[in-house]
Amino acid sequence: MYVPEPISKLIEGFMRLPGIGPKTAQRLAFFVLSMEEDDVLDLAKALVRAKRDLRTCSVCGNITDQDPCYICTDKKRDSSVICVVQDTKDLMAMERTREYNGMYHVLHGAISPIEGIGPDELKIPDLLRRLGDETVQELILATNPNIEGEATAMYLSKLVKPFGLKVTRIAHGLPVGGDLEYADEVTLTKALEGRREV
Amino acid sequence: MYVPEPISKLIEGFMRLPGIGPKTAQRLAFFVLSMEEDDVLDLAKALVRAKRDLRTCSVCGNITDQDPCYICTDKKRDSSVICVVQDTKDLMAMERTREYNGMYHVLHGAISPIEGIGPDELKIPDLLRRLGDETVQELILATNPNIEGEATAMYLSKLVKPFGLKVTRIAHGLPVGGDLEYADEVTLTKALEGRREV
Ligand SMILES: [Zn+2]
Ligand SMILES: [Zn+2]
Repeated sequence: MYVPEPISKLIEGFMRLPGIGPKTAQRLAFFVLSMEEDDVLDLAKALVRAKRDLRTCSVCGNITDQDPCYICTDKKRDSSVICVVQDTKDLMAMERTREYNGMYHVLHGAISPIEGIGPDELKIPDLLRRLGDETVQELILATNPNIEGEATAMYLSKLVKPFGLKVTRIAHGLPVGGDLEYADEVTLTKALEGRREV
Repeated sequence: MYVPEPISKLIEGFMRLPGIGPKTAQRLAFFVLSMEEDDVLDLAKALVRAKRDLRTCSVCGNITDQDPCYICTDKKRDSSVICVVQDTKDLMAMERTREYNGMYHVLHGAISPIEGIGPDELKIPDLLRRLGDETVQELILATNPNIEGEATAMYLSKLVKPFGLKVTRIAHGLPVGGDLEYADEVTLTKALEGRREV
């Protein structure tokens, strides 16, 4: 079947994105044809700029357009606490809570023997360098509540012992709005273990 | 929450596309950051080119990068038949069957009193002009099998009567692989009406 090259190229381009199959790609391509030219140019520019202007913060590993990043240079934030997360999306999720006002450290992954990711593949040396600074008093381990995340948290908690810091792990439990009936056993056990007086 | 502008712009850009909400847009934006720069540039270029280089064929209304389009200028195709479809995606669906070798006419819509689309909003004058040419002998009405599509087919069949052409409508019936048990009554009635000797 003949499809004009500018359409087939665009369909191919969309199909390189995750979760976009041939049908969705075709639908998106035809939608682009119906968009205002300025909006299409804006999207094209945004793609190029996102790729070109963003880098990882040399201090915390966050994705940023200035180095050090906005969070690392924010004088109003509490530099005595560092929250360790696996990636920038986790950092963004933490920021959305508006409950945390400390610093971050983005590991860019978690320890996973299956995938061949050891401590050396993560931004752990950078973290240790930051802990040398006397200002840091607490390290919050906010890696994911799964096998890799737990292994990473455990590894880090042992590794940073010599620094004599307070090291905490985010709590496990039932998600807010969740239902006991549908909770898996491990989560429910953790929720029970973590129970507090009310 | 602070998000670097190159990311937020890209997320906004993706959210302008149909069926892409904030979560998907964020996921796509972060994926772009992980792509090779050349692939990102290719996608950006494909967007701009699709918008700039494509137009509708002045003969048949197909979307094309040359005018008249590839189908209208293909000498190997049968110019005695014109298949009328609502839009370019329908034309592409017909082409995928590899069963049809005639010409097309893309209406760019269907008659819909509810949406205020009358015959004048569609590429019907262009169609009549083409029928003036003696080469056309059959008009296949392949508008969609719904209220608007049927209304459009009926309108066209009356309108082209003076040309004395053979006018046909694509068949209704059960989809291949479908199940009688789950067929709606209208489709089943049409399938029965359209029965043929075997
Ligand atoms: Zn930073
Ligand atoms: Zn054409």
